Amino acid sequence: MSSVVLAWREALGPDKVDASEATLQRYARSTQAEGTIPCCVLYPMSTEDVQAVLRVASQHNTVVYPISRGKNWGYGDACAPTDGAAIVDLSRMNRILEVNTELAYAVIEPGVSQGQLYDYLQANDTGLWMDCTGAGLDASLVGNTLDRGFGHTRYGDHFLTACGMEVVLADGRIVQTGFGHYANAKASRVYRYGVGPFIDGLFCQSNFGIVTKLGLWLMPKPERFCFFYITVPRDEDIGPMVDALRPLRMDGLLPGALHIGNDYRIFSSRGIYPWDRTGGVTPLPENERLRLRSAMGIGAWNVGSAFTGPAGHVRATRRALKKAVGSLGKLIFVSDRKMDLIRWGVPKLSRMGFAKRPAELLDSLETLFSTLKGKPTNDALRGTHWRLRNRPPHDSSDPLDYGGGLLWVSPVLPMTGRDALRVTEIVEPIFAEHRFEPLATFTMINERSMVAILNVAFDKSNAEETETAGRCYHALFDVLMAEGYVPYRAGLSGLPKLSKADDPFWQLATDIKRALDPHDIIARGRYLPPLA
Amino acid sequence: MSSVVLAWREALGPDKVDASEATLQRYARSTQAEGTIPCCVLYPMSTEDVQAVLRVASQHNTVVYPISRGKNWGYGDACAPTDGAAIVDLSRMNRILEVNTELAYAVIEPGVSQGQLYDYLQANDTGLWMDCTGAGLDASLVGNTLDRGFGHTRYGDHFLTACGMEVVLADGRIVQTGFGHYANAKASRVYRYGVGPFIDGLFCQSNFGIVTKLGLWLMPKPERFCFFYITVPRDEDIGPMVDALRPLRMDGLLPGALHIGNDYRIFSSRGIYPWDRTGGVTPLPENERLRLRSAMGIGAWNVGSAFTGPAGHVRATRRALKKAVGSLGKLIFVSDRKMDLIRWGVPKLSRMGFAKRPAELLDSLETLFSTLKGKPTNDALRGTHWRLRNRPPHDSSDPLDYGGGLLWVSPVLPMTGRDALRVTEIVEPIFAEHRFEPLATFTMINERSMVAILNVAFDKSNAEETETAGRCYHALFDVLMAEGYVPYRAGLSGLPKLSKADDPFWQLATDIKRALDPHDIIARGRYLPPLA
Repeated sequence: MSSVVLAWREALGPDKVDASEATLQRYARSTQAEGTIPCCVLYPMSTEDVQAVLRVASQHNTVVYPISRGKNWGYGDACAPTDGAAIVDLSRMNRILEVNTELAYAVIEPGVSQGQLYDYLQANDTGLWMDCTGAGLDASLVGNTLDRGFGHTRYGDHFLTACGMEVVLADGRIVQTGFGHYANAKASRVYRYGVGPFIDGLFCQSNFGIVTKLGLWLMPKPERFCFFYITVPRDEDIGPMVDALRPLRMDGLLPGALHIGNDYRIFSSRGIYPWDRTGGVTPLPENERLRLRSAMGIGAWNVGSAFTGPAGHVRATRRALKKAVGSLGKLIFVSDRKMDLIRWGVPKLSRMGFAKRPAELLDSLETLFSTLKGKPTNDALRGTHWRLRNRPPHDSSDPLDYGGGLLWVSPVLPMTGRDALRVTEIVEPIFAEHRFEPLATFTMINERSMVAILNVAFDKSNAEETETAGRCYHALFDVLMAEGYVPYRAGLSGLPKLSKADDPFWQLATDIKRALDPHDIIARGRYLPPLA
Repeated sequence: MSSVVLAWREALGPDKVDASEATLQRYARSTQAEGTIPCCVLYPMSTEDVQAVLRVASQHNTVVYPISRGKNWGYGDACAPTDGAAIVDLSRMNRILEVNTELAYAVIEPGVSQGQLYDYLQANDTGLWMDCTGAGLDASLVGNTLDRGFGHTRYGDHFLTACGMEVVLADGRIVQTGFGHYANAKASRVYRYGVGPFIDGLFCQSNFGIVTKLGLWLMPKPERFCFFYITVPRDEDIGPMVDALRPLRMDGLLPGALHIGNDYRIFSSRGIYPWDRTGGVTPLPENERLRLRSAMGIGAWNVGSAFTGPAGHVRATRRALKKAVGSLGKLIFVSDRKMDLIRWGVPKLSRMGFAKRPAELLDSLETLFSTLKGKPTNDALRGTHWRLRNRPPHDSSDPLDYGGGLLWVSPVLPMTGRDALRVTEIVEPIFAEHRFEPLATFTMINERSMVAILNVAFDKSNAEETETAGRCYHALFDVLMAEGYVPYRAGLSGLPKLSKADDPFWQLATDIKRALDPHDIIARGRYLPPLA
């Protein structure tokens, strides 16, 4: 055992340090084309433990890489940018420290999972909804927020709902952001900026400290909920659809982080690649594509989202939406009442022999309803089954267990039809050339921009496909950057492409890093280039 | 002339440097109890000029204090925290660099005033609305944003609508934040965070750099606009009113930065202190207070705000508002159509002899309508006349010209009736003890918190009152801090009270300052304590 591991065992106790080969191999697994292997895994239980972790790391000049729960699917999972780091797994720091129902917020530790907070809110009858991502029940809320991830509701921009952080710096100092560093501060969980510089943004997509507590705003359960689904028939309809939805998004009528997915993305969420029908040929032939599209009753592009409010608002938004997109494709609304009716009717239809289609549809609807009401599920993780040759058990929800390969390229684009079309035009030939399907969603993350999630889904058990996937990822990343569509977030192999030594932005970030963590102990190479 | 002034004259040209006694005295004026006097005033015209300003400042180890247009009323105006700084007046950098009507944003320089952008948006028929503050036509938008100021509409949190900064650092490097530092980045004005750490918050309420460009989101003109006004009769009604409005604010039905003002605040906006009737006694006797309240037809607390949207939404919000607050006091709605009717009717009523009251009401309504539609006026600056013994000309809009004294204490509180009542309970005796009226507004700045603006209004021509005002300010500041109601922003004499040497938050801020500006050249003492 190395001296640093011994020092951590001494400082933390042996049960919080694991350097066994099995553990190291487990943490080295990745949905990326390549993972990295740590030197050990540490399991702090408290902020004091995190301080101890950093004290030892500094003394031994060893890099530590904090993860909340390690479910950073598509971007690096639990892996550090480089081999040999000590993974600081914060999953045992999983206390829900406070839930305030009057002002609708929670204070949580990084180990709190989506499923855990959801269950807590339900069990305690709080009347509060959270926003969740598709990353599954076990994914951390803090981790997603610090990566500036997003969900589906009007609280979809997670960083925007974070209020007050506790951060441990490399030298062990504990910083409370916002108003949290003032004695008895009354507004530290309801007003984000505090007074003086607003520094919370520093701790997202960076490596300046380890966040050990976070305030998180929650939504009061709305009076009414109305799901809507739009499908448009042709690939090029994404243009007019984005332009039709933009005014509604910008006026605040559709405040949710609305997702627009293409047919491929939906195929992947409902099943696996039709290997038999295609005789193993990739990418998916056009006739198979059209067959699947028709069998599933979906469009070239599909929106599933919701709006909420008092009955009058919901009615008015329905009207506005009909007017805006009614002529572009199919538009359906499903209120809670209609959903209850469907739930009642579908089993009857199934018994009557109209078996498969309605049951499948109900299944998809249930998933969408859950997601849009902030109830996390593992359903979206099924998307990682798509290109597997050996279908994993249906209930398997850890892509690392069955070798699901995922490389996400996620450029941001202005919310215009032109930009949506341009991005699809750029990326489709690259996907085709590498024999992958262009699994894509566009998310209206704010009132003016969209994040495209372009998903290279592959089978890690196939070495050649894995290698091709890596090349495809880099080709997509490079051409999008060159065209000015910069990603909002990047996976391990994308990170070095983001920063240039002569860019004053990254110089400034590096100046701050040098001031706060001169030995580059925390998460070396995460977004910031390693210190020279 | 000192060597640094000569060096600036050399570097910038003589017309951009002014060290005349008259100018220094002009910039030393303040609405605060005390101002500070600069060593000279610099007028850069470009980012390159700002670089030159900083180069010379570094060579001569002279502090520079950037102001956008110097209209930081109530918090320090154009004054640096200490005497002898060179004021960098950015008012000549006043280009509107871009207005994008499709994606609804502008890119502006710090010298662009509220009035200028408003006129531009109107003259060019952009169909876009901006948010404005009550600071008047000449106040800078960038300056207010960097102080995290707020207006009245759903874009009222100005920092939240800022997208992409250009910042000059002390060593002359130019940083583009967000995506702005990537070549051809398409989303730099529509997505705030960029990739990697989000650093924009660093440049608010701090002194890490000089912001020379800013992207600013604008609102598409809404389909319908509906003003509403609520008055409640008793002081203690602020509690139930806040609690009744909170659910509407939190559910997004009232997305504006709703202001709740007390009677004193409204008296001050409509006239001056009744010196004759009170025989010079201060503070305002209760009988005079009730007389004015009744004469103006206002309540103990008053809300004037608006909501917008398609007709159906506006109708539904009216219903929700009636249900929520209808039993607490008076509630009136004024749509654009009704306002046209009032505009048509009032002159007729005046001609018929019902002269003063309707005309005055129309005047107040026009001001409120303007503000809530983002049209800046100088009307709110009249509030600075309140305690003057000599009434200035009605059209005078610069408090510095007539010695209007203003000290704003602005604590943040959770959006609960309890907290609103507690804050009024704490501050009223202090105002009374110092013989000032507790001019107060509560602004629902986000969905969970309010900023109270507690205004010590005084007459700078009266030395004793000025001195008392200073003491009143400190007494208010101290007791609010002690109770955990920390200010969102502070004036010159409040700044040193915010930071403590043993607070890791301020240590961290100081570490960053030392890394970016080791000689503490930029705005020494602004929020951050001076470097030791």
